[in-house]
Amino acid sequence: MCVPKCQEKLAQALDRRSFLKAAGGAAAVASTAFLATPVNAKEELFRPLELRVRQVIDLTHPLTPDFPTFGGQQQLTVKNVFTLKKDGYNLNEWQINEHTGTHMDAPFHFSDKDTADLIPPENLVGPLVVVDIRDKAAKDPDALLTEADLRRWERRYGRIPFGAIVAMYSGWDEFVKTPKFRNVDEKNVMHFPGFSLDAVEWLLANRQVKGIMVDTLSLDHGPSQDFAVHFKWLPSNRWGIECTANLGKLPPRGAVAVVGGPKVAGATGGPSRCFALL
Amino acid sequence: MCVPKCQEKLAQALDRRSFLKAAGGAAAVASTAFLATPVNAKEELFRPLELRVRQVIDLTHPLTPDFPTFGGQQQLTVKNVFTLKKDGYNLNEWQINEHTGTHMDAPFHFSDKDTADLIPPENLVGPLVVVDIRDKAAKDPDALLTEADLRRWERRYGRIPFGAIVAMYSGWDEFVKTPKFRNVDEKNVMHFPGFSLDAVEWLLANRQVKGIMVDTLSLDHGPSQDFAVHFKWLPSNRWGIECTANLGKLPPRGAVAVVGGPKVAGATGGPSRCFALL
Repeated sequence: MCVPKCQEKLAQALDRRSFLKAAGGAAAVASTAFLATPVNAKEELFRPLELRVRQVIDLTHPLTPDFPTFGGQQQLTVKNVFTLKKDGYNLNEWQINEHTGTHMDAPFHFSDKDTADLIPPENLVGPLVVVDIRDKAAKDPDALLTEADLRRWERRYGRIPFGAIVAMYSGWDEFVKTPKFRNVDEKNVMHFPGFSLDAVEWLLANRQVKGIMVDTLSLDHGPSQDFAVHFKWLPSNRWGIECTANLGKLPPRGAVAVVGGPKVAGATGGPSRCFALL
Repeated sequence: MCVPKCQEKLAQALDRRSFLKAAGGAAAVASTAFLATPVNAKEELFRPLELRVRQVIDLTHPLTPDFPTFGGQQQLTVKNVFTLKKDGYNLNEWQINEHTGTHMDAPFHFSDKDTADLIPPENLVGPLVVVDIRDKAAKDPDALLTEADLRRWERRYGRIPFGAIVAMYSGWDEFVKTPKFRNVDEKNVMHFPGFSLDAVEWLLANRQVKGIMVDTLSLDHGPSQDFAVHFKWLPSNRWGIECTANLGKLPPRGAVAVVGGPKVAGATGGPSRCFALL
């Protein structure tokens, strides 16, 4: 996510955070304790993976200048500089906002933790857990992937593997070329699914997960005012991927995700080429 | 590669091509026949891969605005738009030439074949063959990876696997932060290693290879006037990666490369996050 309008919402969110800090409740303390132990060391979250790759599924949408954005404005311009016919070869330049297309939110996007280039490569490869919430997303565009959904997934498919990458599959990627992807109401509020705060808190406290992915425009659901998931997940020095494609081609477990995040120094995120090896 | 100065060289190369076509020799005919059968279908070059991933090696250099370029000019600008302290989150915009940093040359860069976004994902994952030519590169900065080097590699390590990605390891990546990476002489000619035309012709005729990688600024060596390797390899609808990092951390065979090329529609190439799974 981000861009215009976002700022007011963020200001509110920051106010909310200050309030929580001032309240000094047990939850706030626990959260602070967690933030004190970010996941930096590759050893922490990587264990050998055995895989037989029969297919490579592209989790990346084609990126065009009209690709939908969180703020609603165009975030990519492609300028043709040289052409084969005239110059002997083809070459373009891009002007691009880091949070465009299938892209990473690096920890640094909402914290002072790692920029995209500093994420250890081992933290960009891991067993992919696909949590299907299509049924409730079809009934309610503001649907959240909750702790209950994660527990349900585990009852059916087993414990979320060590070092996993957990993806929300809401089915929203099929709307990517329509206004329903942003799904803006008359009050200019967006409506699409996202992770719930309780889900990411549960993951942080109970499982060893490298990153999360959503097939919508934001880790938080559309109407979020406080960006609670961004403010919980990214400061733990973990990353997220937004606008993931083709999760419907994957089984609930068994694939390995490879997240080709940007290596631009100081990046808060950026277009990422993501694959599932299956 | 590309950018300024390149154009004159290319004009010469195009002249040379016209000459070859006019000559109409057997070689030219064979070449045309090959060009008529581009590799588009994923079935053609993908076979199941078995792997145990113990390490993820990053084949990508950190990309900074001062990263060396083929043309010598700056090709990346990072503009900070929002900051955590002031705006509640961090966000940048980039202006970037597609041929910057560790990047892909898509077939379309030097032909009318596939743009980067159209390359089948299966063609971006394959067994990585690392051909070490450091000895001759240390003696001669214009060294070429030749057909003889490929045959020597095969005598020692076995046949180049079906669907492989073949990397030239000249050791040049260690100079990436020094003028020696471009290595320009007093006549403004660059000197660094690259593939030879005979090597790529041999690969095209005799092995099933998806892409090639170099740890220098160009698939062709520095003093190339005709970009013969670009003009042979890319029109076969295969891709190349330039400015690859960390090939020295890999064995000659046994790793699997995952090439996170750009998914920008119509891209002639672009910054690519490349990993070796080992």
